[in-house]
Amino acid sequence: MKQIEGGICAVRGVSAYGIKPGKMGIAVIHAEGPAAGVFTKNRVVAAPVILSRERIETEHRLSAIIANSGNANAFTGDDGFLDAMEMASMVAEKLELDPDTVAVASTGVIGRKLDVSFIREHLPEVLEGLGSSPECSLAAAKAIMTTDKALKECAVELDCGVRIGAIAKGSGMIEPNMGTMLCFAYTDANVPADVLETALKQAVNKTFNMVVVDGDTSTNDMVLFTSTCKSGIKPCMESLDDFEEALIYVFTDLAKKMAKDGEGATKLIEARVTGAKKYEDARLVAKAIVRSPLVKSAIFGKDPNWGRVVAAAGYSGAELEQERLSLSFLGGGEEVELVKSGEISTASDLALLKKIMANDEIVITVDLAMGGESATAWGCDLTYDYIRINADYTT
Amino acid sequence: MKQIEGGICAVRGVSAYGIKPGKMGIAVIHAEGPAAGVFTKNRVVAAPVILSRERIETEHRLSAIIANSGNANAFTGDDGFLDAMEMASMVAEKLELDPDTVAVASTGVIGRKLDVSFIREHLPEVLEGLGSSPECSLAAAKAIMTTDKALKECAVELDCGVRIGAIAKGSGMIEPNMGTMLCFAYTDANVPADVLETALKQAVNKTFNMVVVDGDTSTNDMVLFTSTCKSGIKPCMESLDDFEEALIYVFTDLAKKMAKDGEGATKLIEARVTGAKKYEDARLVAKAIVRSPLVKSAIFGKDPNWGRVVAAAGYSGAELEQERLSLSFLGGGEEVELVKSGEISTASDLALLKKIMANDEIVITVDLAMGGESATAWGCDLTYDYIRINADYTT
Repeated sequence: MKQIEGGICAVRGVSAYGIKPGKMGIAVIHAEGPAAGVFTKNRVVAAPVILSRERIETEHRLSAIIANSGNANAFTGDDGFLDAMEMASMVAEKLELDPDTVAVASTGVIGRKLDVSFIREHLPEVLEGLGSSPECSLAAAKAIMTTDKALKECAVELDCGVRIGAIAKGSGMIEPNMGTMLCFAYTDANVPADVLETALKQAVNKTFNMVVVDGDTSTNDMVLFTSTCKSGIKPCMESLDDFEEALIYVFTDLAKKMAKDGEGATKLIEARVTGAKKYEDARLVAKAIVRSPLVKSAIFGKDPNWGRVVAAAGYSGAELEQERLSLSFLGGGEEVELVKSGEISTASDLALLKKIMANDEIVITVDLAMGGESATAWGCDLTYDYIRINADYTT
Repeated sequence: MKQIEGGICAVRGVSAYGIKPGKMGIAVIHAEGPAAGVFTKNRVVAAPVILSRERIETEHRLSAIIANSGNANAFTGDDGFLDAMEMASMVAEKLELDPDTVAVASTGVIGRKLDVSFIREHLPEVLEGLGSSPECSLAAAKAIMTTDKALKECAVELDCGVRIGAIAKGSGMIEPNMGTMLCFAYTDANVPADVLETALKQAVNKTFNMVVVDGDTSTNDMVLFTSTCKSGIKPCMESLDDFEEALIYVFTDLAKKMAKDGEGATKLIEARVTGAKKYEDARLVAKAIVRSPLVKSAIFGKDPNWGRVVAAAGYSGAELEQERLSLSFLGGGEEVELVKSGEISTASDLALLKKIMANDEIVITVDLAMGGESATAWGCDLTYDYIRINADYTT
């Protein structure tokens, strides 16, 4: 397997484009084939989530996706649902597709009526731009950004020639719960919808569901995975393991990009938990560390206050014994061991910890020494800019 | 019942004092009688929590409490436990008490060895100052403060003459879970330890356990409740209801002071949830609202982004239907209804919401219209100062 250029357009049979003239952006992706999706578990769900979920569950295939940024079309009642329907219908009509196979996604402010006239007005320009060049994937990825500062796309080619590509957005209101932020993934492998679904659920749990920016689960989270089947290649492995592994690779890349581009973030935090009795324990500890506002603030300020990491592990709900726990920080190629089997380590060096904390990417490793399970989560530091962005979002 | 002056020293039989010459403070409270306690549910627990919990569970009574600020004595191994033992022994020896009835509490940085020599050196001054004046309660309350900016004490007298008083500290690392931050409560009612325990658990669940500053549950949370029995009055009500209600009154007062004094906070947020099917649903929604970094940032910036409140309700885990939900904001004597039974209300007025958000105390009311249960939680806004304080705590 190797990483390749081109984002979703690297996948045979995918064309895309997008524009973002102001606060609102529109992207369209045209790719026909079997499809699967995972959606937010928030009890308040946006109109496009209701619509797209229903279509995926009924049709098990997609022909296109239309997505807008700048307005979440959430908590907008029946009107919001009709607006989402109209978005899909406009695309279906122009591209001559079955409207029931067009998915809709939205991201932005909650509780404001969607300006459909804006979409009506600018959609022709988007459809005209549809193409399969790397620039077309970039344009679509850019159009769905809100507070994102970095583009998020990734593509790989398996040894057998099958390709997988995806674009994503996400920067704030991020603690995906079963679903995730917006992510549109494609493959040209010749696989049916149920294979896509199995691979998708497993990959999402290990990647996007392990990212926390602020702990707020969105009303609009959605990952859609469509296969164009255009490679003509059935996955080359008996067990589909390589295919699933490749999807996890792509999603891990995007999940890390999401965490690193968390609202106001200056650093990527990776929490690796090993030695857990159960996978669930490892997951709880890893997520508690990257969710903790105190850990995140300390890392922003390069304050060597590692005690907050063990406090977060302690309240995570995981089974642990403080006498067994070991803790180290890694960054810029240097590592410091702070706790060894419950005792402050002789290698503990707060000056070195402060130096490690100055790096852009910091890995925190917690070994629970309770068993053999492990998990990794990603997050970012909590900064003045997070407050600035979110104290003044709608105005 | 009426509120009275004097904090814990308003309670007959309580003497107290404290000093805080620098980053570290020491407080001692001398009051003998039956006692109950609740403690943090963090799996990483500080040495003083282990010691005090064991003593309360064995003796069911206390004679004194010694507390220090500036160092949590948490994750400090066997040495930390010996240090906590020594703190208690010093007090027991000087005041001629049974050391097994002296509780210890600590608050401050985690994972640093306690400077016991500081306590040894300054304890005589504290013991010399022990007294029953209102100033003595203030001195004790002041000595246990860390990043707290406001003193937290409250006392009441029941109609029958029984008094209840408490002091507390807490500003950051606050999402109490079963236990709470440091709080020392006293009464002179003639009641046994099991009555204290029942009243204490119930009151803590409705008050301190409903406060969120940042969502980090401390390793050192502790509430101790001792009766001096010095009023000579057995609670005057057959059912103890008045006694329990008075304790809830005192703890609610302190819980609100804690939320309002949250690290960096400029505003108190009260989330009232009504119409829940089960109490647990009401509790989940209320706490999710005051925990949400996005809601907290919006309130800091007076950004009328109310959609974040319904998003938080949605991911709280509570049973709800978005078609039934109503939402309003109240502040400075004005109220605005934003959502009525799932639809954006005709009374919705973003300019008025912005004006309401400018007040120091903001009440958010969510009616789920699913049943008859309700709950209230308290929190604060998320500000630049929270980051400043926590990016640079140990250095």
